[in-house]
Amino acid sequence: MALLGGQCLSRTDIENIHEATLNILEDTGVSIGYQPALEAFRKAGARVKGERVYLSRKIVEEKIKEVPVKFTLHARNPEKNITVSRNSFLTAPGYGAPFVTDWNDEKRTASYADFENFAKLAGASKYLSMTGGNLVEPVDISDKIRHVMMQYACIINSDKCFMGSSYGQKKAEDSVKMAQILLGPEHKLDEKPALISLINTITPLVIDERQLGALMEYAKAGQACIVASLAMAGATSPASLAGTLAVQNAEILTGIVLAQIVRPGAPVVFGSTSSITEMKYGSLTIGAPETALIVTATAQMAAFYGIPCRAGGTLTDAKCVDAQAGWESMMNLLTAERSGINFVLHSAGILEYYMSMSYEKFIIDEEMLGMVLRFRRGIDVSSESLPLDMINKVGPGGHFLDQDHTFHTFKKEFWRPDICDRGTYDRWRTEGCLTAKEVAQKKYNNVLAEYQPTVLDPITDRQLKVFIDSL
Amino acid sequence: MALLGGQCLSRTDIENIHEATLNILEDTGVSIGYQPALEAFRKAGARVKGERVYLSRKIVEEKIKEVPVKFTLHARNPEKNITVSRNSFLTAPGYGAPFVTDWNDEKRTASYADFENFAKLAGASKYLSMTGGNLVEPVDISDKIRHVMMQYACIINSDKCFMGSSYGQKKAEDSVKMAQILLGPEHKLDEKPALISLINTITPLVIDERQLGALMEYAKAGQACIVASLAMAGATSPASLAGTLAVQNAEILTGIVLAQIVRPGAPVVFGSTSSITEMKYGSLTIGAPETALIVTATAQMAAFYGIPCRAGGTLTDAKCVDAQAGWESMMNLLTAERSGINFVLHSAGILEYYMSMSYEKFIIDEEMLGMVLRFRRGIDVSSESLPLDMINKVGPGGHFLDQDHTFHTFKKEFWRPDICDRGTYDRWRTEGCLTAKEVAQKKYNNVLAEYQPTVLDPITDRQLKVFIDSL
Repeated sequence: MALLGGQCLSRTDIENIHEATLNILEDTGVSIGYQPALEAFRKAGARVKGERVYLSRKIVEEKIKEVPVKFTLHARNPEKNITVSRNSFLTAPGYGAPFVTDWNDEKRTASYADFENFAKLAGASKYLSMTGGNLVEPVDISDKIRHVMMQYACIINSDKCFMGSSYGQKKAEDSVKMAQILLGPEHKLDEKPALISLINTITPLVIDERQLGALMEYAKAGQACIVASLAMAGATSPASLAGTLAVQNAEILTGIVLAQIVRPGAPVVFGSTSSITEMKYGSLTIGAPETALIVTATAQMAAFYGIPCRAGGTLTDAKCVDAQAGWESMMNLLTAERSGINFVLHSAGILEYYMSMSYEKFIIDEEMLGMVLRFRRGIDVSSESLPLDMINKVGPGGHFLDQDHTFHTFKKEFWRPDICDRGTYDRWRTEGCLTAKEVAQKKYNNVLAEYQPTVLDPITDRQLKVFIDSL
Repeated sequence: MALLGGQCLSRTDIENIHEATLNILEDTGVSIGYQPALEAFRKAGARVKGERVYLSRKIVEEKIKEVPVKFTLHARNPEKNITVSRNSFLTAPGYGAPFVTDWNDEKRTASYADFENFAKLAGASKYLSMTGGNLVEPVDISDKIRHVMMQYACIINSDKCFMGSSYGQKKAEDSVKMAQILLGPEHKLDEKPALISLINTITPLVIDERQLGALMEYAKAGQACIVASLAMAGATSPASLAGTLAVQNAEILTGIVLAQIVRPGAPVVFGSTSSITEMKYGSLTIGAPETALIVTATAQMAAFYGIPCRAGGTLTDAKCVDAQAGWESMMNLLTAERSGINFVLHSAGILEYYMSMSYEKFIIDEEMLGMVLRFRRGIDVSSESLPLDMINKVGPGGHFLDQDHTFHTFKKEFWRPDICDRGTYDRWRTEGCLTAKEVAQKKYNNVLAEYQPTVLDPITDRQLKVFIDSL
């Protein structure tokens, strides 16, 4: 019988994947391309041979115990602080796309102006939990200061939490410094973290210098890291999803163990963006049903370890904002929520398997997010919501439109759409036969025209600029 | 904390809704517009006052016990028989739409030619479990023979199971007669049913003569009925979703109790298409997150009673095949599957809150269905799918593309799309920037051009025609 709800693995399946993971960690090992990390593993008692690290069951089990089950990230506006936990469902926009797909489905390289726009859309969003990190890759800014300029754009355009750079130790250090400037010298950043950063492994079984440098820097500073694998089943991991889960698991646990070695209790998130390879082209595909299965399995493995987890998003392989973009994105977002994923990166804007961001898609994904959040809120069952006297009074064949109960209840119970068309067909024609993409275009232009981010105090602003100029 | 997976009601919530339902059944009652039904309720010990029937806890509990937990529907091709059970996930196309939305988003009344086309698409589908019932409402056929002509089109164009007419006792009788002709005089139809029919209540708390006549006829003949409520929260039922669930529940249980009175053990399905009212227009909306909540709650209430259930589908309020049509449809279909809905009507083609059918949407919904079925198949965890030796051999930094395991595994593990675009952006442009709707248009034209239904034997065909001519 099929497993339903938020499950696709039985308890035995989970244990078998865990045992396979331990076997990989002990016998195959993980390649660690960073001397300080090798040193840290060695000191912690791991077997290290050249750049290969082998973790025993004992080290893995001991270090997992140190992982906090929840932690709070601090924003410049304390009302926008967010707590990542085993019960949270937090969201951030798309991350890392080098391109923007425009209204005409033309693709162009992303610019800093795009970055600022997406930061504004995230800041203005009533649903997104944070501003995000590398909203797009602004190639018109030199690599040397791109990381701090992105961070600055996040800070200035939104008072929500944001992410740090994971391009090596030095850039991570810069990110921490900016967070400290932002929150002021009194703020004990290592106890009250501000940043969460994305540490990606290189499947199979490699973590490189840049990512390890950032991971160790953030762990040292008490800032949070998502350790995430992007395995491509059939190419960089076995074509069997179970085999892919074991390889992914080995990589993620290696990163998490390292963070705990650096600083016991360092906040970490168990992450996955793994999916399958489209074998016809040898390329990544993220809108597949197997993606949703991996999201679900990731949530179950993280639950087994008791670590907050990240996976899913409004993921699609579509090249334009069409029906495919809609159905693939909803499948992956709803699956993440229903499976108990706690932090969902890539929750707005993604097209073309992480390659591109779209303004219209960003707005449409926000709409889906609103729907999923309403779903999550569930159904209130109480004496007020079971109005037997009213039902009896209205009786068979009556109607409820003119009841006071209806008037004061629907505003609480019914979610209000911004994009979904719900009128009649005739109204839709009269209003110009607008597609969701067209409605979304209007909305994002309105948001960008009207949005006023909470102003950053000028002294802090100046200090941030001075810091950036000093680089 | 939010309820995850396939749940939105706690056990206490379920019991409270059940108690409220019993209260409605005992104190408010249900209006029953059909003398033979009133008579049957009276004989079974129910309190009847005028057209109002009041059911006691005792009758409800006793009759629910009679409901079979599973039953098999028999097709002209026995390989296409389907078993409806508490574990099944069966699907049928859209039902009852009076319009067809064409390629240019123009809406026109549906014709018999449309009906035949949709029957062919359902017959050709590798995912849909049955041909369906009123695929569209072919208004170019006179009402007198429309029901049998629809049934004939289902029979001739597909060898899968199909639905009977629910427009009153006489038409139900005609449906049963046609099923008997199709399966032959030797087939004990009352023990081995062929038909499943949709009996809709009229919310709040009314069941009319036509639906009751059909329900009683089918129950008598041992054919299956879906007893379904379409409550519009805020208009025909309370704006509180819990209140709507109680009203819906009272209606469905009344129908199910009647079927069991007529024939103990009559096959029935606990059904819902309830949703909320878009208060801005006073109209039905089926793409709402509240729809998905009602789908989930319906699955939970049916599980409480141990009765197979029906809800969900590829439901949308969109007027055209755009992103909204995609995301709303996936939300409702995936929710139905994950919640444990056993039979999903409206699984292909629906646009505009049940008002219209679209050929392109039909194909796109089939694609979603393929994805949801792949999701349902889950993840195989076995020694073969955890190939530790291969992982060890490939090692860190290697790849799996040239492994035999990859080659023979991906064909089993990876679902193959027909519509989803997964190539590169450049390939997509070279191939003409096709949207999912355009790809779907090509596919449905191909299917209609190439599909050859299994030929019905000429004697049976003649007998069916003679029967139709006799009406």
